[in-house]
Amino acid sequence: MMTLYDFTGSGNGYKVRLVLAHLGQTYKLVQRDILKGETRTPDFLAKNPNGRIPALQLEDGTYLAESNAISWYLAGGTPMVPDDRLPRAQTLQWMFFEQYSHEPFIATVRFWKHFLPKLTPLQEMELPGRMEKGYAALAVMEQHLARHQFFVGNRYGLADIALYAYTHVADEGGFTLAAYPNVNAWMVRVAEQPGHISIDHKN
Amino acid sequence: MMTLYDFTGSGNGYKVRLVLAHLGQTYKLVQRDILKGETRTPDFLAKNPNGRIPALQLEDGTYLAESNAISWYLAGGTPMVPDDRLPRAQTLQWMFFEQYSHEPFIATVRFWKHFLPKLTPLQEMELPGRMEKGYAALAVMEQHLARHQFFVGNRYGLADIALYAYTHVADEGGFTLAAYPNVNAWMVRVAEQPGHISIDHKN
Repeated sequence: MMTLYDFTGSGNGYKVRLVLAHLGQTYKLVQRDILKGETRTPDFLAKNPNGRIPALQLEDGTYLAESNAISWYLAGGTPMVPDDRLPRAQTLQWMFFEQYSHEPFIATVRFWKHFLPKLTPLQEMELPGRMEKGYAALAVMEQHLARHQFFVGNRYGLADIALYAYTHVADEGGFTLAAYPNVNAWMVRVAEQPGHISIDHKN
Repeated sequence: MMTLYDFTGSGNGYKVRLVLAHLGQTYKLVQRDILKGETRTPDFLAKNPNGRIPALQLEDGTYLAESNAISWYLAGGTPMVPDDRLPRAQTLQWMFFEQYSHEPFIATVRFWKHFLPKLTPLQEMELPGRMEKGYAALAVMEQHLARHQFFVGNRYGLADIALYAYTHVADEGGFTLAAYPNVNAWMVRVAEQPGHISIDHKN
């Protein structure tokens, strides 16, 4: 059986848990508390030298890291990953957009405000710029979703899962999504998918 | 013919140019000066709403963004992308590592120091933390390359291209790579690949 090393509040971990739920795949879940440094121990660094959850141990013992790479591994050959070359690349385009232009702003601000007891002076200084870039990412999504039901090929897939993970909890970072009606409508469509689970769903 | 919108000094653009060079693919190159805001014009935002180079216009007119997604699109079916499920996912793992744990530190610091006339006070404050995370990424690479000739499957591929792009110019950001002998030896192996071009190679 596969083992997922994860932290319940993590949107990155949630992507993998959501893919596994859609696949109906059973797995062992091992919690590592990132607030207590449990992903920086020698034991965990032997699993993922980059010291981050999620990390998935496959049945042959191999460890795979990076939420979007794990999702791609698990969902390959299912309708969550398109078959054709261009929509496959477009799926990856949105997944890289998520990790570079969305997560460092929306997820990081949520982490600071929702999980940390207090921001450092540097975090306080960085906050306005991070919020601005988070809203810029939401604006890119809003523009795309004004013309599309889902991110790629008008069907639910990995690009939606990657972007839903932190968008739907952006309010926990103080983001207000009222000005993004198409993002809100898309979030409802995602949550209505068969097999959907919430970010705090117990395995 | 495909058209690549790019900025010569960009490591992200260089990934795509390097893949195209290995493929022997001719294309039209259009420079957009990111220092003059040429990726934030209405004309360019119609090509990539996220306002970033590189963006590739395919022969059917479709635009594809995100350096690693473009590279995946172009290199699919060649030895630069492994055939099997696990090494494909491992390739993506390193490409997501590059965009999340490497580029925002090594490339951003290089951009600040090499391209900007002067750092802002906030950039000055962020600099030590960015340098530290850049060195942490180099340490993860060093550990992997102590046991492997290339990042995935012991053969040159997209993971190497993605990580080489900014690692080989990290010195322009003030990073010292002397303590990373395996990274240095790997950079030599990458530069020795048939069809290799430099970051400032003229198309």
